[in-house]
Amino acid sequence: MPMKQPALNSVGIVGGGGWGTALAILLSSGRSQVRLWVRDSSKAERIRQDRINANYLPGVAVPATVQIVSEFVAAGSSDFLFWAVPSAALRDVAEHWQRSGAVRPETILVSCSKGIEIGSGCRMSEVLGAIFPNNPVAVLSGPNHAEEVARGVPAASVLGSDDKAVGERIQQLVSGRTLRVYTNPDIAGIELGGALKNVFALAAGISDGLGLGDNSKAALVTRSLAEMVRIGLALGGRRETFYGLSGVGDLVATCFSRHSRNRHVGARVGAGEALEQILASMQMVAEGVPTSRSIQALAAQRGLITPIVDEVFAILYQGQSAADGMRRLLNRELRPEED
Amino acid sequence: MPMKQPALNSVGIVGGGGWGTALAILLSSGRSQVRLWVRDSSKAERIRQDRINANYLPGVAVPATVQIVSEFVAAGSSDFLFWAVPSAALRDVAEHWQRSGAVRPETILVSCSKGIEIGSGCRMSEVLGAIFPNNPVAVLSGPNHAEEVARGVPAASVLGSDDKAVGERIQQLVSGRTLRVYTNPDIAGIELGGALKNVFALAAGISDGLGLGDNSKAALVTRSLAEMVRIGLALGGRRETFYGLSGVGDLVATCFSRHSRNRHVGARVGAGEALEQILASMQMVAEGVPTSRSIQALAAQRGLITPIVDEVFAILYQGQSAADGMRRLLNRELRPEED
Repeated sequence: MPMKQPALNSVGIVGGGGWGTALAILLSSGRSQVRLWVRDSSKAERIRQDRINANYLPGVAVPATVQIVSEFVAAGSSDFLFWAVPSAALRDVAEHWQRSGAVRPETILVSCSKGIEIGSGCRMSEVLGAIFPNNPVAVLSGPNHAEEVARGVPAASVLGSDDKAVGERIQQLVSGRTLRVYTNPDIAGIELGGALKNVFALAAGISDGLGLGDNSKAALVTRSLAEMVRIGLALGGRRETFYGLSGVGDLVATCFSRHSRNRHVGARVGAGEALEQILASMQMVAEGVPTSRSIQALAAQRGLITPIVDEVFAILYQGQSAADGMRRLLNRELRPEED
Repeated sequence: MPMKQPALNSVGIVGGGGWGTALAILLSSGRSQVRLWVRDSSKAERIRQDRINANYLPGVAVPATVQIVSEFVAAGSSDFLFWAVPSAALRDVAEHWQRSGAVRPETILVSCSKGIEIGSGCRMSEVLGAIFPNNPVAVLSGPNHAEEVARGVPAASVLGSDDKAVGERIQQLVSGRTLRVYTNPDIAGIELGGALKNVFALAAGISDGLGLGDNSKAALVTRSLAEMVRIGLALGGRRETFYGLSGVGDLVATCFSRHSRNRHVGARVGAGEALEQILASMQMVAEGVPTSRSIQALAAQRGLITPIVDEVFAILYQGQSAADGMRRLLNRELRPEED
């Protein structure tokens, strides 16, 4: 049961994409004052007028209690600041915020982006932690398609924090009747699961696009889970986390749901379309595309065996044929299952 | 690479349902003489004439090289005998075969049925082992929808045998370009994964039928995997097996595929139809229906905590409302993820 709150919480949400908007709608139903920060002031104005985010979350009303803002200071003084921007944009956006001086040191920062930074290999909480070294930083990740969360369809998610009190405050803030939030101190494992599953969803989509059927896809998802655990353990996550909601849960949601952008991009790649053309046709970011690059580099540096990540990277960035790559993954030598 | 075979293998397949017919088609493409045993001689005659199993595998040709037989002796002298009958019928069918005296003691028996016997709590290989104590008994299980295997769409499966040489013989027999077979000595784990996933697929189908969306279903499948591991370890399986093809692989295939009978039955239950009416309308057996009963009894005997199995059992057999059961599963107390 949620505890009684002594006063209204103030919540800022950075990023007016699908997930940021869904979080704003979700949180506006509780005892919170919610401000959704949309960088582009003309886009912000349109959402403010229409009470709908037509580009990223069509068909779902944004309640009048959600304030749409473009100034840093309006949202920066919040008790909680949720970061829901594409992983490739997070450092840039966060640095703008930092320079604005709007973020109070007590404000709890919650990363909601799923990716690994290209070049640095940083997780998103590490990016925020480097820019805001004095703020508590937590992560929220799980099988949460924005469309369903915004519509109030039940879902569950994982809140990662190394400070139990901080974790419980966010848990109480977010958890309502439609989103159950579980706490887990393994921030690295939560973020790695969320980032990796997008790469594996590209692979699952490629399999779909090639018409390989449900049996092959199940085999591919099984190997994806094993590869997630192998990479995730090497990069500091805990095994149990990958078998939980933010690991296998998000993996299956993304590999099988019609809502998944990454699966969708993979399916079009598998059907023979060029990546540039696919990305140019989409409003939204498919996080697996940059993440396959950052993860491939991290895995190569550490000498990890990552056949699925390698094939996805080669298909997306090196002109490898999707059919050949998938055939190689499915036609490995006969051997005992554990090898 | 398959080894060169010195002579043709003879293979008998017991059961002319979808999976038995798919196995016959698959094996007929190799260096094997294949006999498909169909109990009912008029049904056998129809398949023999039409070269199609219209009831169970419509639209897929049964090659002329597959002999369709109804006599025990014709198939019983085979080098390999695959059992692909519903789990509730296996003991009865196997006892008929045993009394016929047609099965040679050298014949390798391969159970392909996914279920746990009601009453005894036996796995299918235990049923065969009790009736044919002198024969080698192995199991074949994995994410293998019959329709796709019969059509030659690539798939992978797990062969369980406690005799390495026997396992490798079957692996060489079955593995072709379209079905990769991995060996694993953990027969109990393979069979428990295959049996349990059908119960969890009923739950996933109920969630679908209630319109609960992809996020909830992903959470349910995540908890199903944890429950599979908990039950499976208590009943003698090995943890790694449940994270492999015959565990999580078959679980996701069955919970998400349009081919899955168990998911289909669950979806109709979730939509409000009565179980008797659903089963009466189906040609094929949904193994999760009897298995939810046998597993619920086994788990209760051993004091295991099995919320999903319990809710499925209560919904199917005790008149529990599907909506209430699912709500209970999704609305558990807020707590750390590991609890």
